[in-house]
Amino acid sequence: MIYLDNAATTKPSKAAVDAMIKAAECFGNPSSLHGLGIEAEKLINESKKNIADMLGVESKNILFTSGGTEANNLAVFGVAAARHKIGTKIVTSKIEHPSVLEAFRKLEIDGFNVEYLDVDSEGRVDLDMLRNVLDDETILISVMHVNNETGVIQPIEEIREIMLEKAPYAHLHTDCVQSFGKIDVKPKKMGADLVTISSHKIHGFKGTGALYVADTRMIRPILFGGEQQGEIRPGTENVGSILAFGAAAAECDTDQSKLIHLRNIMKEKLQEIPNIKINGSDEYNSGSVLNVSFIGIKAEILLHSLEAHKIYVSTGSACSSHKPQPSHVLTAMGLDKKEINGAVRISFDRLTEEEDVIKAAEIIAKEVATIRRFM
Amino acid sequence: MIYLDNAATTKPSKAAVDAMIKAAECFGNPSSLHGLGIEAEKLINESKKNIADMLGVESKNILFTSGGTEANNLAVFGVAAARHKIGTKIVTSKIEHPSVLEAFRKLEIDGFNVEYLDVDSEGRVDLDMLRNVLDDETILISVMHVNNETGVIQPIEEIREIMLEKAPYAHLHTDCVQSFGKIDVKPKKMGADLVTISSHKIHGFKGTGALYVADTRMIRPILFGGEQQGEIRPGTENVGSILAFGAAAAECDTDQSKLIHLRNIMKEKLQEIPNIKINGSDEYNSGSVLNVSFIGIKAEILLHSLEAHKIYVSTGSACSSHKPQPSHVLTAMGLDKKEINGAVRISFDRLTEEEDVIKAAEIIAKEVATIRRFM
Repeated sequence: MIYLDNAATTKPSKAAVDAMIKAAECFGNPSSLHGLGIEAEKLINESKKNIADMLGVESKNILFTSGGTEANNLAVFGVAAARHKIGTKIVTSKIEHPSVLEAFRKLEIDGFNVEYLDVDSEGRVDLDMLRNVLDDETILISVMHVNNETGVIQPIEEIREIMLEKAPYAHLHTDCVQSFGKIDVKPKKMGADLVTISSHKIHGFKGTGALYVADTRMIRPILFGGEQQGEIRPGTENVGSILAFGAAAAECDTDQSKLIHLRNIMKEKLQEIPNIKINGSDEYNSGSVLNVSFIGIKAEILLHSLEAHKIYVSTGSACSSHKPQPSHVLTAMGLDKKEINGAVRISFDRLTEEEDVIKAAEIIAKEVATIRRFM
Repeated sequence: MIYLDNAATTKPSKAAVDAMIKAAECFGNPSSLHGLGIEAEKLINESKKNIADMLGVESKNILFTSGGTEANNLAVFGVAAARHKIGTKIVTSKIEHPSVLEAFRKLEIDGFNVEYLDVDSEGRVDLDMLRNVLDDETILISVMHVNNETGVIQPIEEIREIMLEKAPYAHLHTDCVQSFGKIDVKPKKMGADLVTISSHKIHGFKGTGALYVADTRMIRPILFGGEQQGEIRPGTENVGSILAFGAAAAECDTDQSKLIHLRNIMKEKLQEIPNIKINGSDEYNSGSVLNVSFIGIKAEILLHSLEAHKIYVSTGSACSSHKPQPSHVLTAMGLDKKEINGAVRISFDRLTEEEDVIKAAEIIAKEVATIRRFM
């Protein structure tokens, strides 16, 4: 198997599985007053510390959630609820993950004034537009760090600069689900007030994510119940998956040179195929994703023909793979219909082997040629 | 170890752990179009079928959530959002779990007309009060099946009858976190439109629950994002914990006679101790919980003295154990301060051994005597 769909999900590592098994033994409810509860709470706090250290922040600013979707929702709805009396303008980009975009659409229905930033043909957010839409009424900017379909890195630090100048009452949220554990993510350096991360993209288990928030007073809860996590995120903590998240985070490598190397190998091999297009910036890329359009081919057909060779890639993001609509990311980048229909996402990981990338590239070339011959 | 805090959480079973390990191998994203995704999706569907079968409902009516808290929130906020144009009266009881009560309090702040039903001294909901508060404006009744602090079974079928007569536009939600897998829970027989269940109370892992909903049009989502679960509950499914939930559900025994037998043994032994009070109905009890007040003793001191013998019980619910407030459940039942301060929750499970119950009862009697002598 050559697994090149790491942007969709990754295989839990041995350390993550071991942590999960440990949690099945240390099974106390972390809210219980007795020793079993205290032990579970201690393990959660250790895991939280691992993650906080990686982000260069304090544990008290980490809230565990059920995944990236809930963390993004908590950031967006949380800031909107906390700050709607200050202003009602909120700003995001056209290429966000659905868990940000749909939250913004919900707030738009609820009466918020929403601006969706354009991106250029390289997939980078339009900073001139940002500068024009920001004002004293703006309470939130949410722009992702690395795009999940293209791997393009967004200029978060520049967005912060513009925000400080033009929107003094806004908070900055960035969805780092695709960057955390792959490239360096330091909220304070980026100037982000809120940062979303996820476990299953870095060899933890599905079902756990986290939100970094510089000050918990910046948000209001979206779930209501018990006293867990300072009553900002109630519900019994997902101890096993949280421990696995911490264990997986401790194994991460944020030196992106390997990813960039793998992406370059794939890119150079695929560029030998006629009538293809590499989508998104090379200069500003995490290296974790290569998005390539095989013009004239339906991407889904290529996906299934590669699957016959046990090579796994994807068409766009998994979260909207069953939708018939064309990719909103590639549409925003101005690609035409043929380019969008033929777009495949190949995504790498620190565990991806160079020889597998070469082998996959060769098979892709053959399959593309075969499909083009017969269709 | 004698673990008598099963209402707080339970140890994941071998089958649950095996299911989790299997998910770490079948690690595809269930939304992915390729075989790894399809395999994960198939496993989720099998797990969902196990759970649906146990409830006597169809798989399409099960929504997986991050736990009981989110499922309760989805039911309460979901119905409120779907039906607020029909009416704004919503009804619950004073003894609900915080994830229902706090959701009602939030809706009260948002302008809903909330009625909190009294309970009698046995811990059963006041049906006369229910009859009086229901009207054409009522859109939701939420009353739990089995109370988490007392084990008292609520008259859900009678509530349904009264609802049909007095509140024709209401939906009935019941939190079955403490009953599912322990006593028979059949939404259709109970007449419940929405039912909350949880995995970690039945030897699954923490971090997964589910909401049964008779018709998904009865609710609106509380999380927004990708297309998972019919877009009513977006976010990558927690595959491992969902598989463990299904495996744990398949092992459940809903014949409550063993639980009642264990509770009776403990009750009879403890009744030999002077100055105690058994809290909540014996007649309407799941058998999973014995709530007993040792008058004049601070429950927390007894809890820790039992811990020295590796016997684990709790004071009230884990979800609010760190709160200094007295139990809202026992308060609603009219207990006085001394009875509430001395109340201990002893909770049983199908795996609890009879001899452990006897041994624990003997140690409790000794410790109570010792504490009373020295304090």
